[in-house]
Amino acid sequence: MTDLVVRNAVILTADPAGTVIEGGIAVENGRITALGQVPDRAQEVLDAQGGLVMPGLVNTHCHAADCLFRGLVENLPLEPWLQTVWKAEGAILDADTCRLGARLGYAELLLSGCTSVMDMFWHPESSAAAGAELGLRVSTGGLFFDFPGMDGKTADDRPRDAEAFFEAHPRTDRLLPGTFPHGAYTVGPENLKLAKAMADARGALFSVHCAETAVEQATVRDSYGTSVVRHMDALGILDPRTVLAHCVHCDDEELDILARTGAVVAHNPVSNLKLASGFARIPEMLERGVHVTLGTDGAISGNDIDMWQALRLAATLHKAASGRADAVTTRQALEMATINGAKALGIGGLAGSLEVGKAADFQVLDVSRPHAVPMFDPMTHAVYSASRSDVVHVFVDGEWRVRERELVVFDMRETLDEVRALVPAIKASIA
Amino acid sequence: MTDLVVRNAVILTADPAGTVIEGGIAVENGRITALGQVPDRAQEVLDAQGGLVMPGLVNTHCHAADCLFRGLVENLPLEPWLQTVWKAEGAILDADTCRLGARLGYAELLLSGCTSVMDMFWHPESSAAAGAELGLRVSTGGLFFDFPGMDGKTADDRPRDAEAFFEAHPRTDRLLPGTFPHGAYTVGPENLKLAKAMADARGALFSVHCAETAVEQATVRDSYGTSVVRHMDALGILDPRTVLAHCVHCDDEELDILARTGAVVAHNPVSNLKLASGFARIPEMLERGVHVTLGTDGAISGNDIDMWQALRLAATLHKAASGRADAVTTRQALEMATINGAKALGIGGLAGSLEVGKAADFQVLDVSRPHAVPMFDPMTHAVYSASRSDVVHVFVDGEWRVRERELVVFDMRETLDEVRALVPAIKASIA
Ligand SMILES: [Zn+2]
Ligand SMILES: [Zn+2]
Repeated sequence: MTDLVVRNAVILTADPAGTVIEGGIAVENGRITALGQVPDRAQEVLDAQGGLVMPGLVNTHCHAADCLFRGLVENLPLEPWLQTVWKAEGAILDADTCRLGARLGYAELLLSGCTSVMDMFWHPESSAAAGAELGLRVSTGGLFFDFPGMDGKTADDRPRDAEAFFEAHPRTDRLLPGTFPHGAYTVGPENLKLAKAMADARGALFSVHCAETAVEQATVRDSYGTSVVRHMDALGILDPRTVLAHCVHCDDEELDILARTGAVVAHNPVSNLKLASGFARIPEMLERGVHVTLGTDGAISGNDIDMWQALRLAATLHKAASGRADAVTTRQALEMATINGAKALGIGGLAGSLEVGKAADFQVLDVSRPHAVPMFDPMTHAVYSASRSDVVHVFVDGEWRVRERELVVFDMRETLDEVRALVPAIKASIA
Repeated sequence: MTDLVVRNAVILTADPAGTVIEGGIAVENGRITALGQVPDRAQEVLDAQGGLVMPGLVNTHCHAADCLFRGLVENLPLEPWLQTVWKAEGAILDADTCRLGARLGYAELLLSGCTSVMDMFWHPESSAAAGAELGLRVSTGGLFFDFPGMDGKTADDRPRDAEAFFEAHPRTDRLLPGTFPHGAYTVGPENLKLAKAMADARGALFSVHCAETAVEQATVRDSYGTSVVRHMDALGILDPRTVLAHCVHCDDEELDILARTGAVVAHNPVSNLKLASGFARIPEMLERGVHVTLGTDGAISGNDIDMWQALRLAATLHKAASGRADAVTTRQALEMATINGAKALGIGGLAGSLEVGKAADFQVLDVSRPHAVPMFDPMTHAVYSASRSDVVHVFVDGEWRVRERELVVFDMRETLDEVRALVPAIKASIA
């Protein structure tokens, strides 16, 4: 018997043809077994009440546990901002607080319809544990950082810790391990290559901050005599399993390199605005065929981690920046937030679109509020009008994660109280 | 006896000192009688459950009834976009559909915590009627347009209609009449001056689109040999009762003119992005002391009318555009969305901040969701993390407008069904 049927929905499949289906979605063993015409009976039947069913969003750049510090540091550019953030992080982060922070962040993500996330943070084992607990798809793994880290580790510890993470966390459909060097200005060439080699040895993912600010470009040029993307290309670390966060400051040739190598760009418009990093050249990337995905970055540059904000900005910001109202189409923006992200995480066959045989990672949106009426086109609505407030139900692998706007995996109140209890120590750390 | 007490709140007053108060707010005869320490008993007592109480937002540029067309026309720059929009408007707009559209838009505004709006549209008497019905503060009045309008009127009808609007709608605290010429490229100098003179004769408001696009600047230069702001300045129509929507394309001297005349700039970042209009030079306006307020513009360039989106963008977009992370401070952004807007509408003594003696126009925000935790500073939360989804209760003049996220003035369902019934005709109009 079918496990789950959601009926009476408008289904934005986000499949390659951009199909929209009125009807239902059926799920068995976590996989989609039918779209449109569905069985009447199932273990569980949900009436979507005419709501919009669409894929769970895929967030390819996040520091979930940084939600602990949301709104702490304001109105500073990246470099002095990072110094302050690291001070606060250093004061309170350990495996337990990282787990608490990841729970907070993942709860926020699930409640806003995001079902997969690539998460770079200290104590990645805590992120993995929180991910298992909340039941979303998480890519994380050993962080590389040449200076003593906020986790009390030194550069020498990093390869061993990364190795241990791989050992303890074999790849599953829910946990996608990788290596996560912080950036080319904080990790030297040898360690960047080592981190990439460790990932490659397992066919695993690799992600690094890249060309986020002009200062970063200048710093890397001072150290290595070339630009960030060229530097990474020369190290041989750019390929389709490499996710580069930001790529805001790239010249034409760097964009060509991104296209040629197939490296993934995780675009984080919310962060890029708030930290005054600038405007990534997304339309020119798309023209060149660069694989562009979307991320929220951390909540301290957000101050939330809301893929809907990122989606709307990805669709609109570059219109103004380029002076072209057709720059980044509705379809392209939606793909960035869904299938492109899934492909970047190596789960393109599993997630990122609603198709028979794929995992049932989807959300049900309320479309009965005034801001959703009238709806001429569901895709336009999703990209330009919808927001986290509209997310009513969220499923991963056909399992309920958010029901009637509340997490079903556990009661958030205790977690939120634990977070609030950290506030005095966090405030004191930067006083 | 006190009419209303809201207790157990964090109150972001948005007063000149930026005061934040923990406690309650008391209301009598629609006015705030106490903040912080409040009476235990009242006709009605609401427990805010630790939520954030803050002023209702003030939207100084909107075309509410354009909500009927949200999402209809996509990926076009302003001029061809306007041609298509006008076609659809012409096909279905009359006094009744304008009223329906205004109800839809005002419902969306109230549900998202916006309590005052300046609304430029065809059939302004319909906007006024919908405003009275929903109980928010509306500034509207005679539209001027030199070409035959979507309302079937010609340029000759405009002054008479504007006069009739003034006659039928004396100024109250809820209805703020004015004249609304569309723009310098659609209304000639004589009619601009006439519209302004009619407003001035009553000490009334005046609003016009201004320097929204580069094409508009070029068009006005072709016609009048000068730039839009200089043209308006030469006509003598710029003063503190003039609200200029957009001002995206202004040179240094035009910014100086805005500062010198005290004309109000209604900044519409959501619209400016989507229509590829560009980035208004807000930091430079603020440096010069230009009076900057916030607007949503219409839902066809949105595709919603969400002051929270506008607020967050006003606070972040210009950081990236200027490369300065301290460009537009949290405080400045909040003021644009509240007290600056109220002052622009001539109700600065009444609305835009929570102070004893002022009208009780306020909203209660839920701060118990993960994206609101932790909260180091309520103002930072309001500007960088809050969104329409957080708005639980909304009051105007101390009267309940939104309660537990639902309009209390009427059941929206019938209105939404009427809107949906228009969809086939709207689609056919541009087919
Ligand atoms: Zn990052
Ligand atoms: Zn407008």
